[in-house]
Amino acid sequence: MKIIDKIDGMKRLRRRLAEPVGLVPTMGYLHQGHLALVKRARAENPSVVVSIFVNPTQFGPQEDFDSYPRDTNRDLALLGKEGTDVVFMPSVAEMYPEPFNSWIEVGKVTERLEGASRPGHFKGVTTVCAKLFNIIQPTTAYFGQKDAQQAVVIKKMVADLNMNLEIVTIPTVREPDGLAVSSRNTYLNPHERQAAVVLYQALSLAQQLWSQGERDAHRLRQEMIGLVKKQPLASIDYISVADTETLDELDMVNPPALVSLAVKIGNTRLIDNIVLQ
Amino acid sequence: MKIIDKIDGMKRLRRRLAEPVGLVPTMGYLHQGHLALVKRARAENPSVVVSIFVNPTQFGPQEDFDSYPRDTNRDLALLGKEGTDVVFMPSVAEMYPEPFNSWIEVGKVTERLEGASRPGHFKGVTTVCAKLFNIIQPTTAYFGQKDAQQAVVIKKMVADLNMNLEIVTIPTVREPDGLAVSSRNTYLNPHERQAAVVLYQALSLAQQLWSQGERDAHRLRQEMIGLVKKQPLASIDYISVADTETLDELDMVNPPALVSLAVKIGNTRLIDNIVLQ
Repeated sequence: MKIIDKIDGMKRLRRRLAEPVGLVPTMGYLHQGHLALVKRARAENPSVVVSIFVNPTQFGPQEDFDSYPRDTNRDLALLGKEGTDVVFMPSVAEMYPEPFNSWIEVGKVTERLEGASRPGHFKGVTTVCAKLFNIIQPTTAYFGQKDAQQAVVIKKMVADLNMNLEIVTIPTVREPDGLAVSSRNTYLNPHERQAAVVLYQALSLAQQLWSQGERDAHRLRQEMIGLVKKQPLASIDYISVADTETLDELDMVNPPALVSLAVKIGNTRLIDNIVLQ
Repeated sequence: MKIIDKIDGMKRLRRRLAEPVGLVPTMGYLHQGHLALVKRARAENPSVVVSIFVNPTQFGPQEDFDSYPRDTNRDLALLGKEGTDVVFMPSVAEMYPEPFNSWIEVGKVTERLEGASRPGHFKGVTTVCAKLFNIIQPTTAYFGQKDAQQAVVIKKMVADLNMNLEIVTIPTVREPDGLAVSSRNTYLNPHERQAAVVLYQALSLAQQLWSQGERDAHRLRQEMIGLVKKQPLASIDYISVADTETLDELDMVNPPALVSLAVKIGNTRLIDNIVLQ
């Protein structure tokens, strides 16, 4: 497994990689969700590149960039076991040399949900992904369905700007009780960890009501809100039933529909989603 | 010479082109300046692609998108004579299918000069260039020095976003009296055409003063302003003596320095520049 920290070195190595090349972009502190992406990339490509880069431009000034968990040695050991060919882990100075000042912004689908709660977040995500795509030139890049809006935004950027790769999304990996695995779950104390299952319970309730024939999106949101509000450690940021492509809120549930929510458990903001289809 | 109007067709053809590939992006209505770019691309690459696309997103709502001159048959005849391999000439609907909404913006260097006079102009330029670069995947793209700020902005985008091509700029081609060749020169009536030489005269004056030892940038600007103001058909948009990379206005002329101006001759806005070095 080659470990590269310079852009020029990565571009040089790229020319020697067997085609097609699969890329899994990560911020490190890898969990089973990331490893599911790597396994899928490994199954589909002779060459697998994983990037580890905690991208400062996608964090707001009040967010957790400084405290975001990092454990490079553990990450490299896990990636070695999965048969990763190349790990690209540049420094912040390497990715954003002064005076860096070029940005990609996707309109409309970035304005709601995560975009509304985290101004500037998606501008950082799309810009760093475009940079990684240009540096690594993957045939396919793999993203988790847990960050559903991120996948929608990146697919839109790739289509609008005619980028030469395919974006594949992989189902969310969950703990036995249903909590979506996330690097931020490490912020939870034991009480909060128990309370955090409320996100999955709310999604499961929506799935159940949908299966029983409920088509009123407002009703689904109200039922989910009612359930989450019973959990005293939880405070709702948003609960949404939206079109999977435009992310417009729905009145009637028209499959496929994205049911998503952001909930703070104590001080930790968690997100999750399911698709009704 | 192959003529392609679809993005998929261009991407397919690209895979069969001999490397390296030179691209000359144009808005058509070709003149000797464009043909100098094509000749240079021809001399340096086994494959030469020229794009013809009058890009609506780089025109302001009050600007000349609708009246911008077009003559495709003449353009194709000229490109055939230069030994062009591929002409890519997509429609607006092909390049900007609804609901297109992804944009590239370069900060700071887009805020002054043309960017100050034409809000949104460079956002359209960088976005369409990124699209063309992704579609055509050139080894080198060739731009005219006449649009000096455009070249600075595109080089900055390519560097910041790690795009995989080189940007080459070619000296401005001039008429015998010094007027920079431009598609917009066709807007000038005979009196205005005579008056338009004032841009080159002002630049020549700056060059002469510089050669005589003048280092005060303010003095250079004042002398140029004085000269242009003597021409009754001319009205100054800006006259600038700036750093060639940051485009910051200079107090003392520190070579290389970009001397540039935008002047309206009647209703026609013209730009020109020289580099003091």
